[in-house]
Parts: sequence; structure tokens; C-alpha cells
Amino acid sequence: MSINSFGHLFRVTTWGESHGPALGATVDGCPPGVKIDAEMLQHWLDKRKPGQNKYTTQRREADAVKILSGTFEGVTTGTPVQLMIENTDQRSKDYGDIKDKFRPGHADITYFQKYGIRDYRGGGRSSARETAARVAAGGLAREVIRAMAPEVEITGYMVQMGPHKIDRDAFDWDEIARNPFWVPDAGAASEWADYLDGLRKSGSSVGAIIEVVARGVPAGIGAPVYGKLDTDLAAAMMSINAVKGVEIGEGMSAAMLTGELNADEISMGPEGPVYSSNHAGGILGGISTGQDIVVRFAVKPTSSILTTRKTVTKTGEDSEIITKGRHDPCVGIRAVPVGEAMMACVILDHMLLHRGQVGQNRGQIGPQA
Amino acid sequence: MSINSFGHLFRVTTWGESHGPALGATVDGCPPGVKIDAEMLQHWLDKRKPGQNKYTTQRREADAVKILSGTFEGVTTGTPVQLMIENTDQRSKDYGDIKDKFRPGHADITYFQKYGIRDYRGGGRSSARETAARVAAGGLAREVIRAMAPEVEITGYMVQMGPHKIDRDAFDWDEIARNPFWVPDAGAASEWADYLDGLRKSGSSVGAIIEVVARGVPAGIGAPVYGKLDTDLAAAMMSINAVKGVEIGEGMSAAMLTGELNADEISMGPEGPVYSSNHAGGILGGISTGQDIVVRFAVKPTSSILTTRKTVTKTGEDSEIITKGRHDPCVGIRAVPVGEAMMACVILDHMLLHRGQVGQNRGQIGPQA
Amino acid sequence: MSINSFGHLFRVTTWGESHGPALGATVDGCPPGVKIDAEMLQHWLDKRKPGQNKYTTQRREADAVKILSGTFEGVTTGTPVQLMIENTDQRSKDYGDIKDKFRPGHADITYFQKYGIRDYRGGGRSSARETAARVAAGGLAREVIRAMAPEVEITGYMVQMGPHKIDRDAFDWDEIARNPFWVPDAGAASEWADYLDGLRKSGSSVGAIIEVVARGVPAGIGAPVYGKLDTDLAAAMMSINAVKGVEIGEGMSAAMLTGELNADEISMGPEGPVYSSNHAGGILGGISTGQDIVVRFAVKPTSSILTTRKTVTKTGEDSEIITKGRHDPCVGIRAVPVGEAMMACVILDHMLLHRGQVGQNRGQIGPQA
Amino acid sequence: MSINSFGHLFRVTTWGESHGPALGATVDGCPPGVKIDAEMLQHWLDKRKPGQNKYTTQRREADAVKILSGTFEGVTTGTPVQLMIENTDQRSKDYGDIKDKFRPGHADITYFQKYGIRDYRGGGRSSARETAARVAAGGLAREVIRAMAPEVEITGYMVQMGPHKIDRDAFDWDEIARNPFWVPDAGAASEWADYLDGLRKSGSSVGAIIEVVARGVPAGIGAPVYGKLDTDLAAAMMSINAVKGVEIGEGMSAAMLTGELNADEISMGPEGPVYSSNHAGGILGGISTGQDIVVRFAVKPTSSILTTRKTVTKTGEDSEIITKGRHDPCVGIRAVPVGEAMMACVILDHMLLHRGQVGQNRGQIGPQA
Repeated sequence: MSINSFGHLFRVTTWGESHGPALGATVDGCPPGVKIDAEMLQHWLDKRKPGQNKYTTQRREADAVKILSGTFEGVTTGTPVQLMIENTDQRSKDYGDIKDKFRPGHADITYFQKYGIRDYRGGGRSSARETAARVAAGGLAREVIRAMAPEVEITGYMVQMGPHKIDRDAFDWDEIARNPFWVPDAGAASEWADYLDGLRKSGSSVGAIIEVVARGVPAGIGAPVYGKLDTDLAAAMMSINAVKGVEIGEGMSAAMLTGELNADEISMGPEGPVYSSNHAGGILGGISTGQDIVVRFAVKPTSSILTTRKTVTKTGEDSEIITKGRHDPCVGIRAVPVGEAMMACVILDHMLLHRGQVGQNRGQIGPQA
Repeated sequence: MSINSFGHLFRVTTWGESHGPALGATVDGCPPGVKIDAEMLQHWLDKRKPGQNKYTTQRREADAVKILSGTFEGVTTGTPVQLMIENTDQRSKDYGDIKDKFRPGHADITYFQKYGIRDYRGGGRSSARETAARVAAGGLAREVIRAMAPEVEITGYMVQMGPHKIDRDAFDWDEIARNPFWVPDAGAASEWADYLDGLRKSGSSVGAIIEVVARGVPAGIGAPVYGKLDTDLAAAMMSINAVKGVEIGEGMSAAMLTGELNADEISMGPEGPVYSSNHAGGILGGISTGQDIVVRFAVKPTSSILTTRKTVTKTGEDSEIITKGRHDPCVGIRAVPVGEAMMACVILDHMLLHRGQVGQNRGQIGPQA
Repeated sequence: MSINSFGHLFRVTTWGESHGPALGATVDGCPPGVKIDAEMLQHWLDKRKPGQNKYTTQRREADAVKILSGTFEGVTTGTPVQLMIENTDQRSKDYGDIKDKFRPGHADITYFQKYGIRDYRGGGRSSARETAARVAAGGLAREVIRAMAPEVEITGYMVQMGPHKIDRDAFDWDEIARNPFWVPDAGAASEWADYLDGLRKSGSSVGAIIEVVARGVPAGIGAPVYGKLDTDLAAAMMSINAVKGVEIGEGMSAAMLTGELNADEISMGPEGPVYSSNHAGGILGGISTGQDIVVRFAVKPTSSILTTRKTVTKTGEDSEIITKGRHDPCVGIRAVPVGEAMMACVILDHMLLHRGQVGQNRGQIGPQA
Repeated sequence: MSINSFGHLFRVTTWGESHGPALGATVDGCPPGVKIDAEMLQHWLDKRKPGQNKYTTQRREADAVKILSGTFEGVTTGTPVQLMIENTDQRSKDYGDIKDKFRPGHADITYFQKYGIRDYRGGGRSSARETAARVAAGGLAREVIRAMAPEVEITGYMVQMGPHKIDRDAFDWDEIARNPFWVPDAGAASEWADYLDGLRKSGSSVGAIIEVVARGVPAGIGAPVYGKLDTDLAAAMMSINAVKGVEIGEGMSAAMLTGELNADEISMGPEGPVYSSNHAGGILGGISTGQDIVVRFAVKPTSSILTTRKTVTKTGEDSEIITKGRHDPCVGIRAVPVGEAMMACVILDHMLLHRGQVGQNRGQIGPQA
């Protein structure tokens, strides 16, 4: 059993390998009546697409998505939506060297140990190419959310690359789309460009931290105890290639706070409860508070580097390897739209769950309660 | 729909509230033929049990677990195992004040907003008392693991309390059980005792970081792409009350590394591949490498503190609240056995999945490959 | 992996053995805000309870159900509802003979072959006692349905016992509760009493067919392609002990019809489409039409009979067996409330799914369309 | 939420509409190391393919299956297998008439009522064309079964068409492939040809009963209580278009038997227990006995007939309809390979579950027990 699906009601199954004929996402549970076409999805895929600037892999993929099922005359019908992306730029010859050697930091060795067979071309199923399918499914989720709750906005951006963090005081939502790093701080953007250029030229790589925020999500979305909103977000983000840590709100730093500092105090605003702060990251007991939902995740440095590393062969001999191929010096950059896609899928899933669950019973805070 | 189950094949559903007659875990998918009795489980529950020292809540619960089904003459039969813990020390009168007010940092407000009704006594379902059921299920998982793979050892401990971190150079496995904080560093243990005593007396609280390690897990366990070992561990830990962050191996710090520093180099040892380091935390591509599996999670400070905090009432009026009750100054302490339990459930689940999946096909690295 | 759960959103996990301390149902996904107490559930359990007349097993069980979680002040809270029934009349000594022999027609032999261990007392987990938990969960489902759609009525009755069928022209809904067979035909009731008396005295047993009808279910409930309403009903009924066949509407006889005879013609009534007939059993393409939903299932004769049958022992020797114990000459009788319970769970589950799924998009047939 | 997946470990999700660009099956959980290519699957698709003789729809579809993922150099890798079949002969113009009218006996009306939108071309998702994807997935399941347990054989055939039943005494396995009805009785084959010819010419249709047998399945496969082998088979068969009844072994006729007649007596054979008869259909308590597993299902007559039927329009007006198109006079014929495919998927799924579950604990009957 492989487990290539996620989501409770909006259920996404991705399929496909880096160098097979195609990859895609089978989306079951998409509500009917939502306008959707390939162009709407292409917008998000283009954001993730490789080869757009010198900071991402030079593999040239059109990443053109086709909708093979689940819509009729441009509207979803409630049946499974099949999103297919054909692989076009597969230079399989580049990968001959890794046929019998395992690249350190890659899944080559564990896939072999688990399955006894692996598609070594570009990492096969373990390639970050799989995230193209996530982005397509996330694009669909965004359109459904827009139809159900147009006030919801989902935005991802980088907050750290290597040792360099953004200046939170310089945070500017509009800056995010203006630079190749999706960083909300113009100063950081230019500083990081130099830093990454150096790394790229030396054939090295570096890790990053991405933050994804969902604004406008109503209070009451989530499902305790094991399908908590934060639990599902942690799983969603940790399932992305190369992710090693996930934080909600205060995250790991919550360990350093006292109860007084951590408590987000509540007072009554014109439209309901308002909070003095958001250490909780918009989630209490696994359920949304109505504040911004804030998730961060750390991406490790690309394991494919031009420095020689020790490894072993399939037949158990010590060896060395340099991974040439076409790779990203900071995969964190392309992880931004992937994180957004996962956030969109989780938020939509819980919006649908909430409908199935509570009906009209939702608690309103106010004089009528 | 609430989602109170976790696990793929070893499937645990917890049920029960803080102040109801009982709580427990319904465990489906427990393999047959494993010796189990209530005492074996009690061992782990006693580790989590409140009221054992001055650093944990003074609620006095026997936390006595009963096995209601799934065993015959002390051996599991493959049918569902029902583990029940009766609530005995329920001082419901303590909680009258919070009937109409929402405690900041607690799930009171979101449960009300979601469900329109909540059992306010002790937090009801959102109480950390639910974790007693997890520990019972985790105890069962440990016994099954012991029967299947006796070399596996799962151990949790605290590595940080508030600003205080352990000294990794002073790490001592044997020290863990000798102090009330499950800290593997004798120096830290005595330092933390003073620190926590102060917090306790002032009615404050503090967060913590717990690390859980599974040693002896064979390579090849895990299930890409959305049921990765690290994904399931992230979900398992994030589902624990008050957890705000989860890390695997290098965790959030992976962002700061370069590819050269992060790569765990591989060479051939007498029994298979060995690694020069373990930045990966024992998991590559969602599958175990055979190294130690290392997970950390951050627990926020207990929200119940003796300082007055601003809040609102059910009818929408601004108000204030002090949470008296009987609470833990650092819930992180009791989260240690809970983290171990979740690790045990996830590891067992993937051991069972691996059997269902790969049969004899597993890849051996060596001359025969 | 045992699979002791059913339902998509209203998810029922039963647990417990015939002669263990207790059995029950863990119900996850019960909507909040529904009034429920143990008495409401007891009503349905009493209908299934053994020992009520000479036609059912003389085992004396109070079958008293306790609600251990999921309600607060008599109202569901949206958290898991634990329903427990303690076993009180366990004459384990009756079962010594079957410790090492397998009763023909029972699950004794297959449980042993599968698990290598079995609780032989009363069939253990494979006992029809498990259905008490289903009836408790079904009672809960009925109350939720009543709160959501009071017009829905679910009624089961016997339509055949051995070679004796009811006279459809004499069908009388009110008669069902008046006789011990739940048969809607007074003539059949008295005829069957004599027939079954004879069988009982001779230590024999006989099969039966039960029909369960859900009236008032709105059109549009169901979930193609593999969670069709009829698919889920077929699974629900086939999962009941001793069931060997399930039919929807015309059932197996549909094979004998031509397309002209089978088509239920449609015309427009004052409140929507009406049908000339109901060969479809109220379901087209897995989705409800608004007509009565009609399911039938066949129960095989009780395998425990007083005639000697050939069998083998655990150690592989040929042997013979008479099953004494306290058994039902026609288990079909007690299967009536069980079938109703399964219908209630499936209908509720799909009502909840429908909410999660379609929102306001449902198609109304009429001038506005 | 639509539910377009089935299976526990061998998980099949079908997608696609009758007249969309393509349809297919996403298969997750396929074990690695199994040789597979498109030709192997094509063999089974050709068996179901329309237009092969005058008794099936004259739609001309190549039904050519492509494997888009999950294999490497012709061997499964354990990752999701995507099986795609492009639609080539879509005469959408044939379906203009049904755009605003609902065909009686079809899912047109209920899909509209559920979703508020439907792809009316050829029934869209509710078309029997969806079963092509099942047959492709079933072909894959057969190859995996062959690799795991070559002694298993799965064969389907018709046992009844309209009022005509086969003569069980004339049963001949070899005859099945020799006639267009997959009927194991040469006499019936020629009789049915005349009968169906008459129906076809008159534009009528008729129902059928199909039997599917799995031989060589070892004892101990199955998963009580809600994932019983018979439960999963009932669901699998009932999910096929037009199926109205499912029977295991004795089926509905079990109602007419006494306990003496129904019990399959057991004695010891050279390789384990043998049974005097197979009323149980090879399943006791949801677990296989080692005998033939016998399932039957009834298919209703094709609802598309040339006789005028009353119906309503989308806007609620009474109307009439004749369904011209290209249809099967007896869809039961093409249901034979579909039933086989579902049997293959269920058997494989439970073989995989059994591995994950019981390990070495399986009970052997004999002196060592």
C-alpha cells in the first residue's frame, strides 16, 4: 500500500513520475457548479514552473494542465476531476550515473530498500515534480473556495533563506509578487539575490522557511481530535518534498513563552470576538478562531550539489557521487506555490467537512446566545 | 463529522470527555497472538498520571485502564481492543465560572463556535485528559512492536523548558527516568526544578520542547507520498493538545544549512549502509533509513494561569477571567509519555503497512542486488 | 487489520465479544445539538433483545445501554458517542464442547484459520450478539434523522420464513408490531407461529427474508460511484451475521423483466416528479429518487441445531457435533431491528454527506430550472 | 463528496465520463515487482469492448488502455498506476434529445436532483462506460494475484437471461468462451441467441444473472466485521451499473432451507478440511473457507428501449421519450467481465490485507495445533 491521497472530503490523489509520460491529480469530492477551466489552473502552475529564472532548475517544462473529466461546459459536475500534466522535457540520459548509486539526502536508497525496485530517472515518484500535481489541485481548490467564501485569501512567501531572515517591520504584501523569491521585503529580495547567486555558481544549495497565511477563514472550521486544522496542515506541509519542520503561529518558539505572554486575549468587536494577538496562529483546539491562519515550514537545502559526496552502490560498494542534472539552488522558492496549494486544499476540505457536520447549529457569540 | 481516529491499519479512535463517566480508546487492527494485560498498559498510564509530583496538576486520577474486548486468556485475538479509563476525581463545581466565559488560549470559544454547544467542565473533549487514552493505545502498540521487532526502542524526553535547553554533551539515557521532567541531563534537571517551582508559585506557566526517538526501526518503513513516516509523525504530534510545532531531524534549522552540511553521507558497514550523520532524522522520502527516527515538538505554556486575562462571555460582553482549577505549570512534562505513545502507534502502523505492501520484494543492498 | 467500522461521516465502530465483559459502539461524526438519552436507545435494543418469547434464544440479557461520552446535559456535542452494553448472562460453561471442534456453518473454523486464536465462547466476535451494538448505534442515527428530517420513517418486517411468504395484498403496517415475527400480515403471523413451533421443538432452524423500507427520504441522497446508496445498503445488510443475499427494489427478479416492464415512468406531481411504479427500489444511479427505499435480505437458518453434524477438530481429526446452547430457531426474527438499524445508519450517513457536498446547488425540477 | 474509490489496500479510483476526452482508473497500493504492460490489460478490455457482435451496443470504441505511471521497464514500482482510456467514438449529436428530458430508469433525474448540473451526453458519469476503467484495474489485479498466488482463478458467466436459466447439469467451463453470452451451457447459448435476437429487433431489452467464481483462494482471507469478504463483494457488485441484487452461495434461497440442509459438513482431507457442500459460497463469518467463492448478481434490463415511455422535462412538464442511441439489448453480457474485474480487485485487496494483519499467526488445522 502506497498512500498517495490526502483530504477527507476534497480528496486528492496524485500520480506519476518525474520521467514517465505524464503526472497528475485525481480529485474526488469537488463540489458541483463551480466554473473552472485549464487556464485558471495554469495560472498557478506557471508560478511553480521550473526554468523561469536563474534561481530555479533549468529543466524546461510547459507544465500544461489538461482537465480530462469532472466538468461539463466549463462547470464542475461533482464527479472526479482528472488533472493531467504531460512530461515533455525528459532528458533521461542525464541520469544514467545514478542508476546504481544512491544520492545522499535523496529517497533513492529508501525507495530501493522498501520496494526492491525504483525508477531512478530524476528520482521517479520521489521527485519534486510531483508537486506540479499538487499545485493543479490547489488551483482547483482555490476556485471552489472563491465560489463558497470569496473573502478567503491564501498567500505564501519566504521568510528565511539560509541565515537571512526578512525584516518583519518591512513586510509588504505587494512586494511578494515583485521578486523571484516571493519575499515580502524589498531589502531582503535584493540581498538574497546576491547570496543565492553565489551559491548557485559554486554548485551549492541552501534551505529556506516559507510562511503561508490564510486570511478571511471564518471561525469554527476544523475537526478535533485527529483531523484538527493544525494537524491536517502539519501533515500537508510535511508531505512536501524536503520539508523538515512545520510551525503553527508561535511554533517552536512557543516553548520559550510564559502563559501570560502566550495567551491571546479576547474582546468584543463589532462583528464578533477580536483578539489582542495571534500567538495561536488562528487555531485553538484544532478549530479556526477567525484570525489569520499562519503556517510556516522549513525546506532543507537541495541534496543535489556539485560537491562530491560519499555514498554506496546497489551492490554494496563504497563510492562517491556528484549530482549534475538541472537543479534548484534553493528549492524553497518553488515550494511557495506548493505550500499555498496545500493550504487551499486543507482549508477547502475543512469548509466542506464543516457543512457536512454542523448544519445550522453553529454557535454565535452575542446577546442571542 | 468529528475525526477522532488515527492510523491506517493500527487504527485508534479515542472517545470521552474530561468530566464524563469514562474515556478510552477503541483500537481496531491490533494483530492477534500478542500477550497483553491491563498491568502492561498501566505501566505507561502511570507515567502520564497527574498528581505525581508538585509539577503536575493535583487532580487525583487512578487512571486505571480496563480491557473490555479483543483479548482471550490474555492474548489479542485480532478483534477490536476496547481500553476504558473511568473518570473518578471530577470536581465539576470548580468549573462553574467558565460556563459562560471563554478561557483565552483554550478551545472553549472555538468549540462553541463550531458546535453551538460544549461540555465546559474541564474543557470537555478538548481537555488534555484525552491523552490518557492515547497512552493506553500506545502501550498496546509497544507490546505489539515488541512481539514483532524486539530491537525497537521508543524513548521521549524534554530538551527545552522555557529558555532553558539541555546540554547535548551531558546527554545520558539513564538520567531520563530519574527526574520528574524526563530530562536526559542531570544538571538541567536540578536547574529546571528551581525554575519551575518559581513559576508554579507565581501561578504562571511555561512551554517546552520534547524529543522522541525510535531506535532500531528497520530501513524501508514508510509510505509515500501522503502517508510518509514523517508526515504521519507530524500529524500525530501536532494533534496533541497545545503542540504548535513539529520537527524531524534537523527541523526548522534545516533552513540555515547548505547542501554540503545537510547531506548525510553513506558508506557500507558490516550489516548494511551506515550514515555519517543524521540530519534527516532517520527518514528520506518519507521512508526510514534504519537510523534513529528523531522527532521534536513544542508545547505552548498552559493557558490556565492565575493572572487575570481579558475575555468575552457567551452573550458577547467584555469580561475578565482567572483560571483556578488544578493545572500543570508545564504541560510539556506530561506530554513526554504522550509523544512516546504517538510514536509507538505510528511506527507500528507503518510496520503493519509494510507487511501488507511489499511482501518479499524488499531491496537488499549488497552483492546479490 | 480488522475492519470494524462502517459509514463515511456517521462512522460506527463496534467492539466486543459474546462473552467478554461488555460490547458497544463508538460513534464518531454524530452531529451536535440532538437530544439523546439511554432510554431512547433502549427502546430499540428491547426490540432486538433475546429471551422475549419462545421463538428467540433463551439467553437472558438486560442489554442495558450506557452512554459514556459525547453528550452534555442530554444533548449531543459533536464528539464521539460511546455506547456500552455490559454482558451479564454469560454461561461460559455451555461452550466447553466447542473449544476444540468447529461448528459447521459457523465462523469458528475461519476465525481460527485467519487468526490462529479465537474466543470460542459463544462465537466470540462472530456472535450475533455484536448486532446489539448496531441496534444502539442505529437508535442514535434515528434520533439524528428525526431532528434533521422528521418525515423519514424506517420500518423493517419479515416477508418470508422458510417456504412461507407473506400475502402482499394483506399488507398492513400496523400488524408489524402485533406479532413476534414483525410480519405485516396477520394470516401469515398465525401460520408461521405453528410452523416455527414445530421447528423449535425438533431442534431445527430455518431461514428468512427481511424487508426494510425507508419512507420520506428526499431525492438526491447518495454518492456515486462506489458509495452509492444501494452499494452502501448492500454492504450494510451483507455485513449482518448469516445474511447471504441482498436485493434493492426488484432485486434478483429484475433479471426476468424486459425494459418496458422495468422502467418506472415519470410524471409531474404537485410537489415534484412522481413515478408509476418502484421497480428501482427508490434508487437510480446510486441516488435516491424520493420514492420509498426498499431493501430485502435473506438470512440463512441458524447453524446451531440439535441434529448431529460431521466436523473436524483443531488437531485435524474427523468428529461430530451437536450444538446445544440457547439459540434462535429463526435468527431472521431478531434480524429485523438490526436491518432497520443499518438502514438508519446508511440513510443518515448519506444525508450528512449530501450536506457536505452539494450546498445549495441541488437541482429543482420545475419552471425555474 | 463523491466517492469514486473502492478497496482498502488495493485502492481503485475511477474517473471520467462517457463523452469526455478520456476515462480511467488511478490505482494506489499496487505491490511492486509485478510484470505488467498495456497488452495484458487490453486482453480483458477487449472482452468487455462494445461492438463485438450484434448483441452489444454498436458504439465503436478501441478501448485502448495506456499505462501513464507506476511501472518502470514493464514492472510495477509500488507507486500509483494510472490507467487511461481515451474516448474516440463520441457521437454527442445522438444525445441532444435527452438534454432537457430525463430517461426513465436512468440516473439522469437523480444526478440532476443531486448536483443541479449533469453531463447528459450518454449519461455522463453514470454511463456503463465507467466500467471500462474497472476492467482495466481488474486486469492489473489479476496479474498481481497471479504473481502472489498462481492457483487462483476467477471466472464469470451468465446463468440466467430473462426467464431462461442454464442447465446446471450441462455446465461446461470450456463453453464459456465459445459463445457471445459467456454462458457455460451450449444448449442455452443457442437458445438465448434466438431469444435475444428477437428482443433486439423489437427494440426491447432484458435482465440477466451473472455468476462469478473464484477458485483456489486460500482459507483465512477476509476481515470481519464490516469489511467481510462477502460484504466487500456485495458492495463491489452492487456498485456496477444496473445491478439490483447480490447473492453469496445459496443467496436468497437460503431463506427456504432448514439448518440441517444448509450446514456444510466438514471432514478432514489430505491437505486440510474439506466440505460436503458449499451452501456458504466459500465464506463463513466473512472469511474464506478455501472452497470456491461464489457470487451472483442480477442486472436489470437496459433502460434505453425503443418503446415510448412517459417522463418529465427539466422545467417540470410531462413528456414522452424514446431512447435511440446505440444500446445493449442485454447489458448483462458485458457485465460478465466487469463482475470478474470486481472479484479480482476484492480478492487481491483481502490478500494484501491478510498479509498486513496476521503475519505468521495463521492457524493450521492438524496435529501440531
